[in-house]
Parts: sequence; C-alpha cells; structure tokens
Amino acid sequence: MTNDVRTDALRDLYGSWAKRAADNPDMDLATMRDIYEEAHLLATEPEDVTYREVDADGVSAMWIVPAGAPDNAAIIYTHGGGCSVMSMHSHRKLAGHLAKAAGVKVLNVDYRRAPEHPYPTQLDEAQKVYRWLLAQGIEPTRIATAGDSAGGNLATTLVLALRDAGERLPAAIVAFSPWYDLEHRGTTLETNASTDALIDRAVVEMMAQMFLGENGSPTDPLTNPLYADTAGLPPMYLTAGGYETLRDNAERFTDLARGAGVDVTLEITPEMQHVFQFMAGRSPEADASIAAAGAFVRRHLDL
Amino acid sequence: MTNDVRTDALRDLYGSWAKRAADNPDMDLATMRDIYEEAHLLATEPEDVTYREVDADGVSAMWIVPAGAPDNAAIIYTHGGGCSVMSMHSHRKLAGHLAKAAGVKVLNVDYRRAPEHPYPTQLDEAQKVYRWLLAQGIEPTRIATAGDSAGGNLATTLVLALRDAGERLPAAIVAFSPWYDLEHRGTTLETNASTDALIDRAVVEMMAQMFLGENGSPTDPLTNPLYADTAGLPPMYLTAGGYETLRDNAERFTDLARGAGVDVTLEITPEMQHVFQFMAGRSPEADASIAAAGAFVRRHLDL
Repeated sequence: MTNDVRTDALRDLYGSWAKRAADNPDMDLATMRDIYEEAHLLATEPEDVTYREVDADGVSAMWIVPAGAPDNAAIIYTHGGGCSVMSMHSHRKLAGHLAKAAGVKVLNVDYRRAPEHPYPTQLDEAQKVYRWLLAQGIEPTRIATAGDSAGGNLATTLVLALRDAGERLPAAIVAFSPWYDLEHRGTTLETNASTDALIDRAVVEMMAQMFLGENGSPTDPLTNPLYADTAGLPPMYLTAGGYETLRDNAERFTDLARGAGVDVTLEITPEMQHVFQFMAGRSPEADASIAAAGAFVRRHLDL
Repeated sequence: MTNDVRTDALRDLYGSWAKRAADNPDMDLATMRDIYEEAHLLATEPEDVTYREVDADGVSAMWIVPAGAPDNAAIIYTHGGGCSVMSMHSHRKLAGHLAKAAGVKVLNVDYRRAPEHPYPTQLDEAQKVYRWLLAQGIEPTRIATAGDSAGGNLATTLVLALRDAGERLPAAIVAFSPWYDLEHRGTTLETNASTDALIDRAVVEMMAQMFLGENGSPTDPLTNPLYADTAGLPPMYLTAGGYETLRDNAERFTDLARGAGVDVTLEITPEMQHVFQFMAGRSPEADASIAAAGAFVRRHLDL
C-alpha cells in the first residue's frame, strides 16, 4: 500500500464503510445510503462555483456553474453508487472540480435510484436530461457526458442509447472508474481483491441485483457496454485506479472501443482506489486526473 | 398538525430519524451522525453563493460568500446537533440562505464534536474563530454570531465568554431554536411532547451527557445561559417553532435578557418544528424567518 497520507484517507474511509457493513450484516438500505453519502467529505469545496437546483423535465438536478463558464455548453454528470446509493449531493464537490477544470457548467443529475426504481429508470432519465438540454438551446457539439462508477456506465450507455435512436450525439464522454461488467467476470475483481478497500464480488453482486431488478439483463449492451457495438461513439476519457477491483472494466472497454475506431484515452493511476477523484482538492492524483479530464472535455467541445 | 406539505417534510424527516433510533436502540454514534447529516436535504442550494474552506487558527471552517458581500464583515455560524452530531456540511445551505438574506459572508464553523471533545472545546474554538476574524482586520462592530439549537447556545455563550473576558463584543446575535436548558426543566418539554417530531427528554438527556462530559456542569452560565448575567449583550434575534419541545428555551432567555436591558426580538412561528429554517428555500415560514434574521443582522452591523 502507498504511504501517501492523502490516498490513505480514501482507503481508510472506504475501509470504515466495509467494516460497518460487515459488522452489521442486516444493515438497512437507508443506513447504507447515509454511510455512502460520506464520500463527499474528502473533496474540498471548489472555489468560485455556484449552484442552482433545477427540474429538468421531471428529473431532479443541480447546475454547477464555475465563474466565467459559457451559458450554452454543459457536462451531464451522472453520479456513481451502483445506481442505488449516493446522490447529486455526495458528488457535488467532485463534479464542481470537474466543472472548473473544464470551464463548463455541469448538470449534476439526481436520478431516481434502484431498487425502488431499477433499470432502465436511470438511463431513461439521463436521456430526458439530454433532450431537455437540447430544448434549452444547447447544441450536442457543446455537450459532454461524465460520471463515475455506475455513473460512468450511464455516461456511456446514454450515448449508446442516443446512437441507437439515431440522434445527434454529445461530443465527449468521461468515465471515472466506470463499472461496465455487470457479470463480474473481470480478472482484477480477484487479482486486486487485497488492495481495493471498497469493492469486492459481494458488493458488485448486490449492486447489480438492485440495479437490474426483475427485468434487466447483465448482458444487455445498455446495462453492460462490454457487449455493445461501440462504433460511432465520440472521444472518451476513461480512468481507473491501479488498486481497484474494477480496473479492467475501463481496460476491456478501451480495447473494445478502440477496435471499433473510437478515440479512447485510458488513464490508469498506480496505487489509486475506486473513484480516487473523490479526493479532489486534497490529492495530487485526483487533481491531475480531473485536470486532464477537464482539458479533454474542453478540447472536444465546440466552445 | 398542520397540513402544509412543506412543513410536513421536516416533521416526516425528523420522524424517520426518531423511528430509526427507536428501532435500533444500540445504534452507534457514527450511524447517528450519518442520519443527522440528512438535515441538509430539505434546504435548496442557495443561488449566487460561493464556498471556500479555511483553517481559522486550527479550527476547520468554510467561508460562505454571497455575491456582493463586503470583505470586512462576517457572521460566525455555529451549527446545531447537541455539539455531538451534524457539521458545517449539514448546515451549509441553511447558513448560505442566511448569508444571502444578510448580504454578509458567513464563517461556517466545523468545531470538533462531543463526546470525543466535550465542553469547553466548542466554546474555545468559537472564541478562537472570533479572534482569528479580528486578526483578519474585521471589526467587532461588523461581526454577528448565529447558530441553531446547540449552535444557538454557542452563538450566545461565545458572546458571554467574551463579555466576561472584557473583550470587544460582536454587534448582534441570532439563535434559531436555541437549546439553553441543559437541565431539561422547561415546561414545553412536556407540553409539546406530542407535536415535536424530533426532540424529547431522552434525546436532550443523551445530548447533554455527551456535550458536558465529565467536567461540564448543566448550571454553568457558559453551558446554560439561563443562569447567565446577560447584561451588556448586543441585540439578539431568537426564534422557536410553536410545536417544539425546546420552545420555552428561547422564551425564558428572552425574559431574562430583557430584564437585564438587552434588546431581544423573539419570533415564535406557530406549528413549526425545531430549526424549521432547515427548510430554507422550500417553506415560506423558513424563508420569512431567515429574511427577518438577515435584515436584523444587516441593521445592527456597521456596514
């Protein structure tokens, strides 16, 4: 393990969640959700950023607006948490740092969560939000999608769904530690089991069950993009931490998409945990990753 | 009970906490803290406000800066939660709405909490923060203290401690639903037991025990200002909800302070719960109370 105190903070926070879950095998979902909300604690408040809650065609969201951002460009941010825990609040600061790095407003989406609202609720709401942005006069060439973990999946499957529907596509996709493998077949799920402080097979099995519900399939390209035809996707920026069990989700998708001609940048940061960008403002690795993702968005949007 | 759906939301949230605590009599403090953090959910994101974390002489805090606020004036905000739960994060939005209403920056203090850090940790840190503001060049005549519940107690006892030390005093005090009665002697603790969705005798007994620790006394004027000589305090704005068990804390302190010549405005809003200002941006009663408190601060600061 690294001795970097800043990285240890995320490992220790995740470790405390895992321990509390293990100590309370009958923990209810409300308590689990409260615990996961702690994720916001590690990021600093991004400076010179304002917030405004909005109803985006029935979907709860908040605008995150860095000083000087243009009005008519946006990043749709879909938060992680297996589509069942976490919220726009747990990810407000992380998304705020990304907004600053890109110089672009973020629409931070508070989609309804599984298991109360299983697949395809989140994908439907992400599409609603995209069309709502278009109705506000924002061109697809000035929209990026971004997200982490299950939200990285949504940032990807949203564009796949739009592509399948023959619609105009966002200009860039960012996925931090995306969770694509709904079948739990990745080798790093085993090989990184001793270094990942949060995610193991039991966690992803539980999350997948909640997310898919009765009708979702783990081999549907719109739940598991490792089964997707990726042709036509816009440029993508994918990240993973070297220590995480889901690392090869990003790696395998990169191979797949590059094979279909997609421009994919893959960033693997050694010794990092799942969604190490939670440490925005407090860890150089998180800041470097967010700076690179922000520059990537800026480069590919028609600003 | 009121039929106002906006007020019911706070009652229902508090009720859900009380039920979860009753269902889990062995609930650990970490879980209790996570649950109480949900308080932030009811307030909207205040618009046109920015945030900046700061180390105020060793005390964690964040600046909450409404657009156009002067540099050299401040409200010190001490959050509620019995000095043992909640944080600057749970109260960020509430304090942000107050900052906007006053047109004055808030320094939102994240004091260390009991029982790990019992009395007088919070009072010491509040004084540190006040002196740190003076060292930044902010005049006492341009400083107000504010807080809710146990933080309303701190907003008051901070000024009492400064008065006792012969220091220059802040120009105004705001306390939303202050908790002053560390002996639990108030009559509304019984008469409002059926309408207060959160606080009953068991809750305040537990909170007082954590806050006072081994060495604190419930009759010390700096823990229980109902025992204080209030002479020389600046103008005060005190609020309480008509339905709350702690209502008479504000009422009794008002009588005491007015008897000593202090200019006290007491606002009792019928049918409201404890710290109904949590509903800032979503309830007309919360917005009216915060608007009045903000105008009060603005009137008494030498801006």
